[in-house]
Amino acid sequence: MAQVEVELGDRSYPVVIETKLDASKLLEAIGERRAFIISDTHVASLYLNKVKTMLAERAIGAYVIAAGEASKSLEQTEAVIGEMMGVGADRKSIVIALGGGVVGDLAGFVASTYMRGIDFIQIPTTILAMVDSSVGGKVAVNHPLGKNIIGHFHQPIAVFIATDMLKTLPAREVSAGIAEVIKYGVIWDEAFFTWLELHLDELMALKHEVLIEAIQVSVKTKAEIVSKDEREGGLRAILNFGHTFAHAEELLSGYGEILHGEAVGAGMVAACVLSQALGKMSPAETQRVTCLIQRAKLPSRLSTSLQKDNFWLAMQGDKKSHAGVVNFVLAPKLGQCEMPQMVERALVERMLAESY
Amino acid sequence: MAQVEVELGDRSYPVVIETKLDASKLLEAIGERRAFIISDTHVASLYLNKVKTMLAERAIGAYVIAAGEASKSLEQTEAVIGEMMGVGADRKSIVIALGGGVVGDLAGFVASTYMRGIDFIQIPTTILAMVDSSVGGKVAVNHPLGKNIIGHFHQPIAVFIATDMLKTLPAREVSAGIAEVIKYGVIWDEAFFTWLELHLDELMALKHEVLIEAIQVSVKTKAEIVSKDEREGGLRAILNFGHTFAHAEELLSGYGEILHGEAVGAGMVAACVLSQALGKMSPAETQRVTCLIQRAKLPSRLSTSLQKDNFWLAMQGDKKSHAGVVNFVLAPKLGQCEMPQMVERALVERMLAESY
Repeated sequence: MAQVEVELGDRSYPVVIETKLDASKLLEAIGERRAFIISDTHVASLYLNKVKTMLAERAIGAYVIAAGEASKSLEQTEAVIGEMMGVGADRKSIVIALGGGVVGDLAGFVASTYMRGIDFIQIPTTILAMVDSSVGGKVAVNHPLGKNIIGHFHQPIAVFIATDMLKTLPAREVSAGIAEVIKYGVIWDEAFFTWLELHLDELMALKHEVLIEAIQVSVKTKAEIVSKDEREGGLRAILNFGHTFAHAEELLSGYGEILHGEAVGAGMVAACVLSQALGKMSPAETQRVTCLIQRAKLPSRLSTSLQKDNFWLAMQGDKKSHAGVVNFVLAPKLGQCEMPQMVERALVERMLAESY
Repeated sequence: MAQVEVELGDRSYPVVIETKLDASKLLEAIGERRAFIISDTHVASLYLNKVKTMLAERAIGAYVIAAGEASKSLEQTEAVIGEMMGVGADRKSIVIALGGGVVGDLAGFVASTYMRGIDFIQIPTTILAMVDSSVGGKVAVNHPLGKNIIGHFHQPIAVFIATDMLKTLPAREVSAGIAEVIKYGVIWDEAFFTWLELHLDELMALKHEVLIEAIQVSVKTKAEIVSKDEREGGLRAILNFGHTFAHAEELLSGYGEILHGEAVGAGMVAACVLSQALGKMSPAETQRVTCLIQRAKLPSRLSTSLQKDNFWLAMQGDKKSHAGVVNFVLAPKLGQCEMPQMVERALVERMLAESY
């Protein structure tokens, strides 16, 4: 068992990393309160009854959303909240997010707004949610015009990671999660990147020790960055490496067509190419990142054409953008990252056209 | 000009109370940023162009909602946010709420969730919004099953009160606002209550000095309570005096049929009667409150029957309720208040039936 603390003063919380979900720890976190579980169709059929049984009379209800990004909507929020009111959830109740990033984002947003904010616990069931979205308190739903536009910073009171749950995860989702694992190597920790180059195949095969190590390093890195900058006033923005491209790709290809991690894979390669063209990252390093992304069975090229006006327009809608200027997180070298900076459209397009 | 500071550490802000809206102060608060105005059909026809002119090129857009409680919905939230995205509002933009409580609650909720939270300024145009809803950071929209169920604590960066705007306020809205003014006398300040007994007629006629004094004392009282307990972990709950009844009354009579202040007037009398029946407030004091409520042309009796199951059910849905127990804020004497406490249904019904 490993445990990582996210240090945020009176909003600090533990991320517990184990093989199996520990009922006693979960019950301890809930205490005398009542819990409402939010899950999705995929996860619920595998784990909902198990968690309900663990909670016994602490569980007052559950809501199962359709799996997929389309469920991250205000309409769905209203439906979940209606169900919570129906079963008498109150200010002292706790929301439990049992699922991947979509469930965590929606359940966290519901918790952040229900009666002006109640506690919630994350039980992430995908690698992506374990190493990224369940930690750090970013919660949101989508607007028809943009991803995660409606949201909040609302930290969970605890995160329980049980790696056994990954056994049922489709291979495509495993790859998508590994994209964010690779990101920590690229932006923060060159040694971890090298370790990933050595152990990627075992990680893809979910080999126990490798999986635990990869998750632990990823969570520690994220916790460290979030502890220094909870609300993305500064440092935290580097977690968006590759994401300016990725969010536009997701928006234009239609949410659900491409997985977030897949878009991040292609987006990171684009960010490396752009960094290299601006004289930052070396060609050899860009090559190493591209290669690792490909080995993880992730797309290394954006499927949407960067030349198109709507791609630039979509990037202007990114939350890092300001007054129409598009900002990019760039890497000076492998294992390091710079704060978002403006790069002009013509320059971005030319550089990517030439060397991509 | 009077100014009251709401002391909340790095979330502190001024409430500026003046006769006319001060363009220079408003522009100073906005600085180099861009502002998006949210108003309603009633207020927009009177003041929107005036404020737009003040802001000049700082104004990037405006959204006018239909006047009335029905606009406080997630559906409306999504529409406003779509418009903000369309005009390029970003994380550094500011929302300006120009209107009464409904506009302030919705605009504040929009600001609290847009790109995970942006700044907002309140320009309240009703007495109720000036003395109550614009100060303290409670923002929310309604769920079909309950009022203000979906919301947040999101403090404005400044509140600008211009009493001249009240000249266009319908008499019924003036009375509704005075209900909350009277509340501060009942729960916090007996001397202010006595002053109100002396000056109520002048206040109803919007006499300048009396109006400024009443608003200033009310805002100071609210600011003091909110500064001590921003997120309603304790003391702030006393601001809900009469509101357990009022919220149920509003829910059952259909939002918009009865004004919030009207429900609060009747709810405060019910809370006094309940306090008296429990040996707290004296009969003479209850009589004084009832009389002042009536002089303010507010209903002093709830229109919905307390005996009905759905009234109790509605009160169980109140945010102060926990595990089905209904809590009431009671007054030991005029000018004082106790924290919410449970009173059993049979007791509440009998007492109100006997002495009401």
